[in-house]
Amino acid sequence: MDDSVRRHAEVLVEHSIEASAGDQVLIRAPTAAEELVVALYERLGAVDARPETLWTDRRADRAYLERVDADAVITRETRLAATEAADAVVLVKAPRNAAEGSDVSGEVARARGEAKQPVLDARLDGRWVITVHPTAAAAQRAETSTAAYRDLVHDAVDRDWAAHAERQSGLAERLREAEKLRLVAGETTDLRLSVTGMDVYVDDATENLPGGEVATAPVPDSVEGTVRADAPLVRGGETIEGARLTFEDGRVVDHDAERNAAALGRLLDRDEGARRLGEVGVGTNRGLDRFVGDVLFDEKVGGTVHVALGRSMEECVPEGRPFNESAVHADAVVDTREDARLEVDGEVVLRDGRFRFED
Amino acid sequence: MDDSVRRHAEVLVEHSIEASAGDQVLIRAPTAAEELVVALYERLGAVDARPETLWTDRRADRAYLERVDADAVITRETRLAATEAADAVVLVKAPRNAAEGSDVSGEVARARGEAKQPVLDARLDGRWVITVHPTAAAAQRAETSTAAYRDLVHDAVDRDWAAHAERQSGLAERLREAEKLRLVAGETTDLRLSVTGMDVYVDDATENLPGGEVATAPVPDSVEGTVRADAPLVRGGETIEGARLTFEDGRVVDHDAERNAAALGRLLDRDEGARRLGEVGVGTNRGLDRFVGDVLFDEKVGGTVHVALGRSMEECVPEGRPFNESAVHADAVVDTREDARLEVDGEVVLRDGRFRFED
Repeated sequence: MDDSVRRHAEVLVEHSIEASAGDQVLIRAPTAAEELVVALYERLGAVDARPETLWTDRRADRAYLERVDADAVITRETRLAATEAADAVVLVKAPRNAAEGSDVSGEVARARGEAKQPVLDARLDGRWVITVHPTAAAAQRAETSTAAYRDLVHDAVDRDWAAHAERQSGLAERLREAEKLRLVAGETTDLRLSVTGMDVYVDDATENLPGGEVATAPVPDSVEGTVRADAPLVRGGETIEGARLTFEDGRVVDHDAERNAAALGRLLDRDEGARRLGEVGVGTNRGLDRFVGDVLFDEKVGGTVHVALGRSMEECVPEGRPFNESAVHADAVVDTREDARLEVDGEVVLRDGRFRFED
Repeated sequence: MDDSVRRHAEVLVEHSIEASAGDQVLIRAPTAAEELVVALYERLGAVDARPETLWTDRRADRAYLERVDADAVITRETRLAATEAADAVVLVKAPRNAAEGSDVSGEVARARGEAKQPVLDARLDGRWVITVHPTAAAAQRAETSTAAYRDLVHDAVDRDWAAHAERQSGLAERLREAEKLRLVAGETTDLRLSVTGMDVYVDDATENLPGGEVATAPVPDSVEGTVRADAPLVRGGETIEGARLTFEDGRVVDHDAERNAAALGRLLDRDEGARRLGEVGVGTNRGLDRFVGDVLFDEKVGGTVHVALGRSMEECVPEGRPFNESAVHADAVVDTREDARLEVDGEVVLRDGRFRFED
């Protein structure tokens, strides 16, 4: 086994979920992630934790979803029970074909989304982490070789996360006290929003690996202006490129995309909250320097900024502040590494990809 | 996908577990069984049942078991909870390397066996079936090509099970009333035992696919004589060939093997019940005509007889009759297709591979 896969498992077990003796650890992984699963079993054995794996297979899911009645798509009680019995959950993404879910009918996909909710709630109740095992299909989506993609994943994963957390803390503190943000990038993005009274979420690779994000929640009605997604927006196997959104009173009033504008329209029409922003975040992972078409990576690219249509993160919205409800959470990443700035209450905290707090 | 894989899934879903709308079905399968799992999802979707799959991976298990302390091998509460939440469980065997578990230490293997017991009990509480998806490794063990092995598996699986059940019923009825059995094969096997007051288990492919077995339980103390296993006895990746066992007062007093006699000794020393017989059964699947080194098949070969060291089957031992307790259940299959006979209370019911009830 490649040493980098062993190292990936080590970071997951010892940093992300901090597994210890007697922990019941539930892994959810596709067959293409077998190398990483073997490495996880090795490492979990070493700390006397007890692993079990639910096999996620998009080909099988599609075969099921193609034939089942939408009414019959109920919660998997088996998965729910296993999740409730787990002390920690490790989700691994490793597509063999990133477009496998692209032809599932909207009605069935919606039913599946609803049926999954209790499992999601149960997972969020405990320790959990989402990670990626590199595959040829993911490399293809990133338009690079499989070998280069493996290196990219492992460079983004194998970092000094303690030092990273330290470096992120300045930005997190600044955002915690912030009231107004303004994001400007070239001619395509100029967005203003309020974050008054909101909390800050700091991702130091405990819930996402790679980690590297500092995020908060906009006051939903406060968003004004225009934003362009410079990274692809991927939803259920469909890729929307160059999405442009214009907000008035917090609501998307105009939208377009350079590719797959129809999918963007369907996304916005999903529910009322899908037309509003639930998150604004900053990518801080300096091991990532390009977009790869996987939001888990793209939103972390060091020196970029993203906003998400749809559901807010619980961690960011204190009791009594407005929470944006939605079945959707879709990140639009803005490339702020050239000719761009992020202002917090009039002060520039990010210019052309460099953070003030990093100096 | 191969039509024979679809047909296999159809028999599992519609005959073995009789899945229907709303059923929660838990599959346990290794990655090498992906084709069959996809076919199962397709078929379960068609009947509006809800599938979920636990991934069993012997490489991962070995990586875990190699590093964990024996004391730390506890029950997987995740697997137990998922099994309890399931209406039916489908177990699929599909080795990539049939010897993968061969170098796990005895202490850890025993701890794992004990930790599994609650999951086993939970599975046996509901509907369940064990089946096989053909792999190159299983074909290698059977000393045949992968293509020929696929044909063999599918010939054994895709049968008229209703007609089969009808044909088996004569033998089952005869065994239900039987008191004494005598099994004679060539110069190597002459075994006498009592089955007085025991029940009969009829496998018509609901719990095993392929099915095809009629079995009962010996009175443990009644077994006398000698038996030779003509099919390989496989335990945890170790293969014992040509095992010979001599019984007095129901207990193995002498044993030897043509290959791997040491493993046979360890098996017999596992516990007191491992030295006694828990089962005597007859194979009735006419789609199987050779041994392949997998007991799920070998014990079903039409016209053969097997006895099992160790634990009796609950179905065969009525309240008040002696039950053979053991952590072991190891089948020794006798090739009774030439120069052999099985007598029930002095009447020959099987001679040279042909059953009286089939005539």
